[in-house]
Order: sequence, then structure tokens, then C-alpha cells
Amino acid sequence: MAEMAFSPSDIPAVALQNDLFLRAARGEQVERPPVWLMRQAGRILPQYRQLRANFPDFKAFVKTPEAAAEATVQPVDELGVDAAIVFSDILVVPEAMGLDYEMVEAKGPKFPEVITGAASVEALQSGAEAAGRLDYVYEALRVSKRALNGRVPLIGFAGAPWTILAYMVEGGGSKTFSKARGLLYSDPLLAHQLLQKITDTTIEYLQGQVQAGADLIQLFDSWAGELPPQHYRAFAVPYLRQIAEALPAVLKTVFAKGAWFALEDLAELPVQVIGLDWNTPAAFARARVGQGKVLQGNLDPCCLYGSTGTIVAATEEMIRQFGPNHIVNLGHGVYPDTPLSGVRVFVETVQEYRYAATAQE
Amino acid sequence: MAEMAFSPSDIPAVALQNDLFLRAARGEQVERPPVWLMRQAGRILPQYRQLRANFPDFKAFVKTPEAAAEATVQPVDELGVDAAIVFSDILVVPEAMGLDYEMVEAKGPKFPEVITGAASVEALQSGAEAAGRLDYVYEALRVSKRALNGRVPLIGFAGAPWTILAYMVEGGGSKTFSKARGLLYSDPLLAHQLLQKITDTTIEYLQGQVQAGADLIQLFDSWAGELPPQHYRAFAVPYLRQIAEALPAVLKTVFAKGAWFALEDLAELPVQVIGLDWNTPAAFARARVGQGKVLQGNLDPCCLYGSTGTIVAATEEMIRQFGPNHIVNLGHGVYPDTPLSGVRVFVETVQEYRYAATAQE
Repeated sequence: MAEMAFSPSDIPAVALQNDLFLRAARGEQVERPPVWLMRQAGRILPQYRQLRANFPDFKAFVKTPEAAAEATVQPVDELGVDAAIVFSDILVVPEAMGLDYEMVEAKGPKFPEVITGAASVEALQSGAEAAGRLDYVYEALRVSKRALNGRVPLIGFAGAPWTILAYMVEGGGSKTFSKARGLLYSDPLLAHQLLQKITDTTIEYLQGQVQAGADLIQLFDSWAGELPPQHYRAFAVPYLRQIAEALPAVLKTVFAKGAWFALEDLAELPVQVIGLDWNTPAAFARARVGQGKVLQGNLDPCCLYGSTGTIVAATEEMIRQFGPNHIVNLGHGVYPDTPLSGVRVFVETVQEYRYAATAQE
Repeated sequence: MAEMAFSPSDIPAVALQNDLFLRAARGEQVERPPVWLMRQAGRILPQYRQLRANFPDFKAFVKTPEAAAEATVQPVDELGVDAAIVFSDILVVPEAMGLDYEMVEAKGPKFPEVITGAASVEALQSGAEAAGRLDYVYEALRVSKRALNGRVPLIGFAGAPWTILAYMVEGGGSKTFSKARGLLYSDPLLAHQLLQKITDTTIEYLQGQVQAGADLIQLFDSWAGELPPQHYRAFAVPYLRQIAEALPAVLKTVFAKGAWFALEDLAELPVQVIGLDWNTPAAFARARVGQGKVLQGNLDPCCLYGSTGTIVAATEEMIRQFGPNHIVNLGHGVYPDTPLSGVRVFVETVQEYRYAATAQE
């Protein structure tokens, strides 16, 4: 691990032309906040839809590193965002552990088999063995890194263990995730066993991503907001901590959607950046997180359906409310039907913003 | 209105044998908290499923007052809850306004036509004209009231205007409600027009429910948590206020699921009870709401999948954390696959609880 701190990647170092995102993530003083969008790779870009049409399905696309890398770089070319995020899916982890999924067009993921008890948890593979099946992601990162050629940093990511458990137990998206949440009451020990297997795999997976060139790792806890606070503390935070502690040499972001009640717990994790959804006021988050972290977010993605004036005003107001130590993003992944013109206005508004001298310490 | 304050109902007054729920809602000192469950009528009771099997679909059932009344009373007979809630659906309001819906089994509501612009809002009926089509609900309340014969109070309800707008624009449930949320950015004036029409109808509808015997009115803002705070303040709270002010003579509860960020706004409404979801810690809510309201909630419905010991411990702990001025409920409607045994343990735990003398002021 000590060696990784100095040479975390097997990618030859190329000086970054735009390192604004990394400087901001480290808490350095910057001239304006960096900007990127969750789900910027794919969905909204016509170039993506054109590329994607060459593949029979989503998974075939994800498993083709050259295609995934092209989708990764497209928003840098087309939108001028300050970071790229590797095109992939959080569900590659359960698949690598032995629980296959299908991506149903316009509906979302569906798992033909789900976790139903001790035997199905026992049968899962984990750790290096499972993460070894994810070479296609590491290769997508390597190809992306070469294609970016130092233009902007590259973000790697994984689902947080609770969110991955939620899919593995529920078998797909759900209005309530009541099966997954119910397991925490009906068989907490089994839930912990499953969470540990997911965590072991995720650590190996993210170490592989760092080796392949990821400059920052984001953990997506998409279903954090489904848990009561005491369960988030017992079943989510300890595994986030294990992951964060296992990756000391790379910058890390946790985005726990809906987990406003856990901000004080998240603030204690050894990560640099806390992502926020669009419900969470900047002042509320800062008061709970303290001064030691950078905050990322959190414009309502629906704002991008508004007029240019609406988007500019809301984006500037958000930047003012956050103040320094802020990375601009939406409060959720950009929605597929968002007008590209609205996305451009959002990105350009941030690019043109300059912190007032007094806003900097 | 002055007359309503003294004679709100056209139902002959019958002395309540169990008025614990109303005493608690008024903020009076009580020996234990009352208990009922959102969605207690229907879903979980075998008696309901038997009754429901006689009807071709959900809507035919809802529109048959005798059947709806039987479903209303069943949980009082079977579970011993401290209040009944009329069996109905929040979507009867958009239907009465001219926007028909279908209830798709196991999937939820679907609107063949949705609100798409000014013409479709203009075409909606509202106020007394629309509410006049809801006689079947008033009749269900009257029949329920007679059948209850003073055993417990009867709760009436409606959807909050923002939540009704969300269904009318979105056309059904949604993972993101991005169309409805988007309207607030793309055409805020039209959104306000639609919200006003829904509000006018809801006021007439709830006055009809009070006339028909409802002892307390609950407003369900199921999709409150989808809005950023400034939009909840602009597009939800003012309409809740109009409704609450139009019903001065009856006790009122607002349950705004996910609206932790708006508790201070909700605290200023002229309602007696604030409902809480299972994410919101009692102390957090009390600090924001102040001492002037009763809090209702908020056990995680998934707790009822747990063992008897788990349910008893969690229920007692919840009651201790809330302290006085509390009505026990789940933090969400009871889920359809909840074991009836778990529901019984929950209700009985509350029935056997007694506040310590020191917990009362």
C-alpha cells in the first residue's frame, strides 16, 4: 500500500491540462468550482446513442472497453466538463460475484436469480476472484485514460455495499425496496455476511480501477435514503469505511442519495468529497459535515428542463450558497430526456463563474 | 363556517367509546399513545381480500360505499387499532376533475390522458362541481360511521395538491417524477393554475368528508420528498395552508413523506398533527416542529418482517424517543406482504404501553 501512495497507477503519468477537479477535491483554493454531471457518459448525447446502436444490448456495450471508453470521453469533447467518469454500471459487481442481471430497455435492471437465504449468499464468489472478472472495466479505464491524454481527470466508481445488496435481494429497482430492507430486520447476520462479501469484492475492484488510472473513486449509495438512520449506521457506514480505508492513496467521494440524516456519520469517513442530492440545502450539509470535506452537487436535474434564464440563475445561486470547497454537479444522474441545450447552459454557467476574492479564505 | 365549528357533521353524535386518538391529536395528556397504520384498511387482512374478490377491479370496490365501509371497519375488528380510516384512494380527486385513471393490479395507477399544457388544465373541472362527483366517498364515510357506532374515531383523507399534480402530469408512479418536477421549472404559472384547481376541489371534497362524519382529516403528500426545498415552499406549502385554513373545525394531519427539509414550514400550518416517515428521527422532528404539534409515526414498515422481539423492542424504543404528544403509526403505508402476526405484535405493544408518570408534563 505504501508503494501505491507514490505510484497508484500502471498508466504512464501525463501532466493534466485541466486539474481543476482534483485541486478542488483536495480542498485547494480554486478560481471557480469544477463541473461534471452524474450519468454524463451516455443517455443525453446523440453521439452516444449513435455508438450504442452498434451493440445488441447495454451489457454488450459495457463489456466492450473501446466503446465504453469512447462514451467516457464524449462528454469531455461535447460538453467541456472538468472530469470524465468511466462508462459502466454498478451492477457489474453482483454479476462478477455470480448473480447475473439483464438490463431491460427503458425499465432498468432485472435479476433472474436473487439472494433468498444463507445458501445463496454462500454460493457467491467474492474478493479478488470476483473482481478478476472485471478486466473489461479496467481496460475501459486504460483506454479512456489514453484517449483523454491528460485533458481532464478520470473518475472510477462502484456501488456502495448497501445499494448492491438492495439489488441482489430485491432483484431490480423497487418502489420500496421492502425485501432488502426487511432482510436487515429478519436476518441481520446474513445481511452482514452479504455486505462483507460485496465489500471484499468492491475493494479489489476499486484497487483495480486505481491501478488502471482512476484519479478519484466515487461510491454511489443510490438507495441510502431508504434506510432508517440506525440501519444506515449499522449496515452501510461500516462497509463504506472499510472501502475508504482500503484505498488510502486515491481521492474518494461518497454520494449517499437521501441520506441527509447520516451526514455526520459520512463526515467521519476518510474521504475527501461528500455528494449531495437536490433536497439537501448547502448550509444544512455544511453545518453537519463541518469544514473538513468538499461538497459536491446538487442542482435539481429537472432545472435543466427550464429556460436559459432559469438555469443560469439557479446554477449561480447554488454556487453562491455552497461557497468554496464545492464541486458542481446535479443532485442526481442527468435524466435521459434532458435537453442538451440545458446541459450546455449549466456547464457554461459554471465555466464562466469566478469566485469573488472575498469568498476565498 | 361558524356553524360547522359546532356541528361539523350531519351524522348524529354518538359518544366515542375510545377517543384516545382524538385526545392525543388535540395534544391532551393521555395514558399511552394511540395507534393506527396507514393503509390498514385493505391489503394485509384476509377479510379484505375475500371481500375484494367480489369486485371486478379496485375502482368498482372503491365506488361501492358498503364495501368500502366494510374494509374501513375491518382493521378495528381484527387489529383493535384506535382509529379507522375510510377505504378510498387519493386519485378519486383527479378522476372527479375529469382525468380518469386505471388501477393496474400489482403495478399501480395509470392515467390514459395526462396534463400536457394549458388546454388540458383549462379543461379540468374543479371546486364543488368536481367534488360533487365524490358522493360515493361521503356515503362510505356515513356507512362506516354508523358501523363503527362510536367505537373509534374515523379519519378522512385526500392527497396533497403537489402529489395529485405529480400523478396528473406524470400519468402514474415514477422513479423520478421528472415530468412533474420539470413543469415547475418549465411552466411555473401553469403549475400554479393546476395546483389551485386541485386545491379548490380538495377543499370542497374534505368539507364533504367532514359533513359525512370524518373526525380528523389527513393530507398525504406522498411525493413531497421529490422536491427541492424552495419548490416545496413555493408549490406545496401555500396550497396545504389554503386547505388547512378552509377546514377550521376539524382536526388535521399533514404527512409529507420525505419532506424533512420542510418541517419548519409545516410547523407553521394550522394543523394539529405532523406525520413523519421512517427516516426522520423523533428528536430532529421535534426540534424543527417545536412543542405546538403532535407528531405521528414512524416505525419502518419493514420492522414488521422481524421477529416478535425485534418488533416489540423497536416499537417501545420509538415511543420512548418521541415522548408525549405522539400518535404511533408506521413511517409509510403498511406493505402488502407484511405478516399479520407482525402487525398484531406492533399494535399490541402500543396497547400495553403506559407512559411513565415522569414522561408526562
